[in-house]
Amino acid sequence: MRRTYTQPPRARRLPVTLLGATGLVGQRVIALLEGHPWLQLARVVASERRAGARYGEVVRWHVETPPPTHALDLRLEPPAPSGDLRGQIVISALPADEARELEPRYAQAGALVFSNASAHRMEPDVPLIVPEINPDHLAALTTQRERRGWPGAIITNPNCSTIGLTLALAPLQRFGLERVIVTTFQAASGAGYPGVAALDLIDNVIPYIGGEEEKIETETRKILGDWEGDAFAPLAMRISATCARVPVRDGHLEAVSVAFAQRPEPEEIIAAWREFRAEPQRLGLPSAPQPAIIYREERDRPQPIADRLAGDGMAVTIGRLRPCDALDYKFLALSHNTIRGAAGAALLNAELAVATGLAE
Amino acid sequence: MRRTYTQPPRARRLPVTLLGATGLVGQRVIALLEGHPWLQLARVVASERRAGARYGEVVRWHVETPPPTHALDLRLEPPAPSGDLRGQIVISALPADEARELEPRYAQAGALVFSNASAHRMEPDVPLIVPEINPDHLAALTTQRERRGWPGAIITNPNCSTIGLTLALAPLQRFGLERVIVTTFQAASGAGYPGVAALDLIDNVIPYIGGEEEKIETETRKILGDWEGDAFAPLAMRISATCARVPVRDGHLEAVSVAFAQRPEPEEIIAAWREFRAEPQRLGLPSAPQPAIIYREERDRPQPIADRLAGDGMAVTIGRLRPCDALDYKFLALSHNTIRGAAGAALLNAELAVATGLAE
Amino acid sequence: MRRTYTQPPRARRLPVTLLGATGLVGQRVIALLEGHPWLQLARVVASERRAGARYGEVVRWHVETPPPTHALDLRLEPPAPSGDLRGQIVISALPADEARELEPRYAQAGALVFSNASAHRMEPDVPLIVPEINPDHLAALTTQRERRGWPGAIITNPNCSTIGLTLALAPLQRFGLERVIVTTFQAASGAGYPGVAALDLIDNVIPYIGGEEEKIETETRKILGDWEGDAFAPLAMRISATCARVPVRDGHLEAVSVAFAQRPEPEEIIAAWREFRAEPQRLGLPSAPQPAIIYREERDRPQPIADRLAGDGMAVTIGRLRPCDALDYKFLALSHNTIRGAAGAALLNAELAVATGLAE
Amino acid sequence: MRRTYTQPPRARRLPVTLLGATGLVGQRVIALLEGHPWLQLARVVASERRAGARYGEVVRWHVETPPPTHALDLRLEPPAPSGDLRGQIVISALPADEARELEPRYAQAGALVFSNASAHRMEPDVPLIVPEINPDHLAALTTQRERRGWPGAIITNPNCSTIGLTLALAPLQRFGLERVIVTTFQAASGAGYPGVAALDLIDNVIPYIGGEEEKIETETRKILGDWEGDAFAPLAMRISATCARVPVRDGHLEAVSVAFAQRPEPEEIIAAWREFRAEPQRLGLPSAPQPAIIYREERDRPQPIADRLAGDGMAVTIGRLRPCDALDYKFLALSHNTIRGAAGAALLNAELAVATGLAE
Repeated sequence: MRRTYTQPPRARRLPVTLLGATGLVGQRVIALLEGHPWLQLARVVASERRAGARYGEVVRWHVETPPPTHALDLRLEPPAPSGDLRGQIVISALPADEARELEPRYAQAGALVFSNASAHRMEPDVPLIVPEINPDHLAALTTQRERRGWPGAIITNPNCSTIGLTLALAPLQRFGLERVIVTTFQAASGAGYPGVAALDLIDNVIPYIGGEEEKIETETRKILGDWEGDAFAPLAMRISATCARVPVRDGHLEAVSVAFAQRPEPEEIIAAWREFRAEPQRLGLPSAPQPAIIYREERDRPQPIADRLAGDGMAVTIGRLRPCDALDYKFLALSHNTIRGAAGAALLNAELAVATGLAE
Repeated sequence: MRRTYTQPPRARRLPVTLLGATGLVGQRVIALLEGHPWLQLARVVASERRAGARYGEVVRWHVETPPPTHALDLRLEPPAPSGDLRGQIVISALPADEARELEPRYAQAGALVFSNASAHRMEPDVPLIVPEINPDHLAALTTQRERRGWPGAIITNPNCSTIGLTLALAPLQRFGLERVIVTTFQAASGAGYPGVAALDLIDNVIPYIGGEEEKIETETRKILGDWEGDAFAPLAMRISATCARVPVRDGHLEAVSVAFAQRPEPEEIIAAWREFRAEPQRLGLPSAPQPAIIYREERDRPQPIADRLAGDGMAVTIGRLRPCDALDYKFLALSHNTIRGAAGAALLNAELAVATGLAE
Repeated sequence: MRRTYTQPPRARRLPVTLLGATGLVGQRVIALLEGHPWLQLARVVASERRAGARYGEVVRWHVETPPPTHALDLRLEPPAPSGDLRGQIVISALPADEARELEPRYAQAGALVFSNASAHRMEPDVPLIVPEINPDHLAALTTQRERRGWPGAIITNPNCSTIGLTLALAPLQRFGLERVIVTTFQAASGAGYPGVAALDLIDNVIPYIGGEEEKIETETRKILGDWEGDAFAPLAMRISATCARVPVRDGHLEAVSVAFAQRPEPEEIIAAWREFRAEPQRLGLPSAPQPAIIYREERDRPQPIADRLAGDGMAVTIGRLRPCDALDYKFLALSHNTIRGAAGAALLNAELAVATGLAE
Repeated sequence: MRRTYTQPPRARRLPVTLLGATGLVGQRVIALLEGHPWLQLARVVASERRAGARYGEVVRWHVETPPPTHALDLRLEPPAPSGDLRGQIVISALPADEARELEPRYAQAGALVFSNASAHRMEPDVPLIVPEINPDHLAALTTQRERRGWPGAIITNPNCSTIGLTLALAPLQRFGLERVIVTTFQAASGAGYPGVAALDLIDNVIPYIGGEEEKIETETRKILGDWEGDAFAPLAMRISATCARVPVRDGHLEAVSVAFAQRPEPEEIIAAWREFRAEPQRLGLPSAPQPAIIYREERDRPQPIADRLAGDGMAVTIGRLRPCDALDYKFLALSHNTIRGAAGAALLNAELAVATGLAE
């Protein structure tokens, strides 16, 4: 997908350093930065042993549109922050184990690290941000910097299957979320490359994704919860996830059942989704979808093929709201796992930081 | 799949008339009757306009093993019961609308109609049988015959997605089933042929199957309920289904969450499944799987590819039992939709009738 | 796919009437006309019984990006040319049988009918145009108008699997094409919607596409042949095709072996492809890919996923040129079947007509 | 697939040692040995580091029917021949690099090594056997033993894509094979497990399989050639292959064009296939399909789903014979790549050795 941004360009586009540039998520970040009005790709970082190589020689490109030429010519840098990075934007598309070790070093050097990795998401002083939902959690950065003694910061975005769910649930918090059961139909790209074997997905479904159910259950409660000045108070809600991998390239579909403290009418729920406008939309962040939530009336939507690119891959599409005999209501939601659920999420967090003066 | 039956052959194999012989389910019935020790395919019935043609000329065979030669040579008969069919076994693989009209005519003529169609499943005097669960519901036939004034009978089996669920739930009834939420990953063959378009299932999921969710919700409560001498009392249980079609040929996977009146320990649930032995197994019905329920310990099972042929396609495979934060427990179940969920279900009902003296 | 055209807009965009607007190819035409600098969708025509309905109510949209809003609001018109259509542009995405009857009526009324249908392709006075190869065949229109006695014209484009092959072969004509053997891996969308059943393409290949092999064999020779003032002289070349359908959404891959009169060096062949520039590129037609032919060095290209959108779906990607022990050389070529192979082909023909003053 | 062998059991079933027991091909060998009347699985060998483990703990089973219980209980042995293995049957499902080093050590120790690996296939004293075609090539073993100075032997079977092609061509040798062009549609299982990534095969085709085209071109000529007492004389035939991987689990489909020295009538070709009876069929080898070649009249066959299990996965199914404008004739052939193309091929070679007294 090639994006056309509609925001006016800034006088100076801020440079972005990309960690984990060669993976699927790193590639998406590069594709999304192409033509970006505020940010530009400046440096690509990969593992020590690939440092010095041209990006174009090393990457096995998987985005469906061709890679930007200038990115192909960048030289890969080693994973070592150098100099004073104060205020610099770093986007991390690292795997969790590398992120755990490397991201703090960049934060120590002063960088604002927008991380897609799971490594630090659940730490008590690290904000886990969906800009439409909890931009106020950025306040935790003061605590983070004090405790860690670093000038930079780590700001994380949620797991690819959490983000669609939280966007669908956020407008419903007013009705009192009590119980949520979610079953996912997750795309192959969520496992990276090479990821899942073809023999595991041709004519098959794999009803297990390591760690995924726990991530949905814990991250959702943190995102929908509160920053109380010194700690996060997760939302008091019972939530249960079952995660399965299906033979789809991109787009995580989720079947959700919800019980509310005050059961609303169906029209109230749909109105809550349709009227949902939040900070990124108000601030006009370049990656913010307008609207963030699309409710479709057709009886067989959302579908990966038809809806994953809604809002340039940044919107959540919801459909089939109907009563649930066991809880209160059920519906289906879909979002693009490597755009809204990963690369675009980190980018939107970076844009939020720029728009609120955190980065500059 | 080619079955090898282990039961001793009867002196005389009872003749079977097959309605809807050319469809996917009809083909499966023919494949399963091959080598059957009690029953043999005698007559194939199709639509009026195809009557007289050789089965082999008309059928577009979709079972993965070759069609039995003798079946290919049978002449298709028109859909009109002729003569006295008292005690004759008719298996109906008709679509619902044709079944509604045609099955009563065969019952009127005396036949025992074992129907896979949805047309009569929910009628108040028609038993909806899973032989492992509610063979006692056959008692409703007395009422059916009285009310309808026919010498024959209609005995139905449930929808392809209901049957796996009810088999998984039946052993848990002792703990008091209160709420069930099920999300299905259903195979393409469930929609018949041509059924779903390739463009709707390559790289896609369709989160809607017409009428399916209602079938699961109503049929499950009828099957797990009681025949009270003059009427069925459905189980008082709250149940909610979401049904989706995935790019899989055969095998319906289901993610299930359950709340109980008396919450058991996980080991009690697994034991209930593993120790489950029921009437078809005790009677040694040829199509009865031994065991009917398989619980697997692997963390990524059941899967369509690996488990759909368990018990020659007649067993239900369950896995991943774990606590559900929103209800009590959750697990996954899988069964073969055109064998256990359709052709094999009708056949097993017929075998039950033979073993209990209903047919002869 | 959403296109961004780079050509300057005309003062007045010419109105386009679209026949067969609701099918897959018709939908692609509408998507490609969105933002088109020279042409705009004015009228949508469908079958008699749908006339009067809003396009948005009737279409089951299958293009991966959302339908243009203004198209959804158009009213479907009945298939009957009315008034004087002299010089008007009609694009026909009709099935062959309807095209056979209807397209001549529009030509009779004066319209320039750019037809994607096979109905008239092989007629002796109908040009079969690939603008990069044989724009001079438009000269046949004089003969066509004389013989038919109509003021309009029918201009056809080739079958979806022919067009990639002819573009790959055209630059090699200088070496004397003697024999060609092509085996295709064709996408599901080539069969329209619903088209192929999912059960025929999940875990399967269908080695037969009705009429396709004959189309490739006859159309290729006509396109690469000459218009001799009163008749087409097809290229004297032996050509043989095998066509198969594979589980791919879009993009026809073709394995080609060729024998030449004068066997060139591999570098000469690659240079011929890379240096290929033709009329549409010189004229700057909005849909003309720059370049039309891409030769890739990677050992595993072209692939549907990676290459079908090259040149916005209008380029042909070629790879793996190597000696063929049985003929001279072999290679693989790929093009997007519903863009370059259908909707985009008809559109490019219309643009050629506009640029050369045929339409205005 | 579960086989039912029809041959009478031998008084004593010969023990088989299986090298590479945990891979896809090794698993198939184990599945095929289940119920085998002449042979039985005695020892399973895997890599040094897994030695001592139970087979059932280590294997990630991929055959569609459950693994034999007794195999699961076998202890894996280290890859080191011990003692005198004279006359012992060893089946090797090793990858090429391990086979290169290990198979000679087993032959040195006296074993008859039936190898599916490519390592030794093209060596000048190693027979490459398809029992229906060139059982006389076993005569090369005398030379092999003399040159190598070992009491055992290495007997190889061809690559999975070669074997279907050679079986289709062998009956046509009488017409003088001059040129062959083959394009393959190969299944994912041919690459082993994990093998190809799902992201490379969902909605995609990979037109490259490392080394495969060369294997087809060289192996076919060796198999169809002669053993001249001291060396193999490959068939003087021009042959060219293009190999592609398609989203199919099992079953290699091949599109073939052929030119003959004496062009036969189509009926002669079909008769040659249908009347083809060879040594394994005459000897009644347990794995020999009856017949080895099936010619189907339907216009859309062979297909992987419908035909890969023909002859229990050991037959080759051919269809669509028709004139080829560029050579003489073209047709399609299909065989099961892990049964006929690998595990079953090695097993059939072993059975040939048993029946001819080579092993005992």
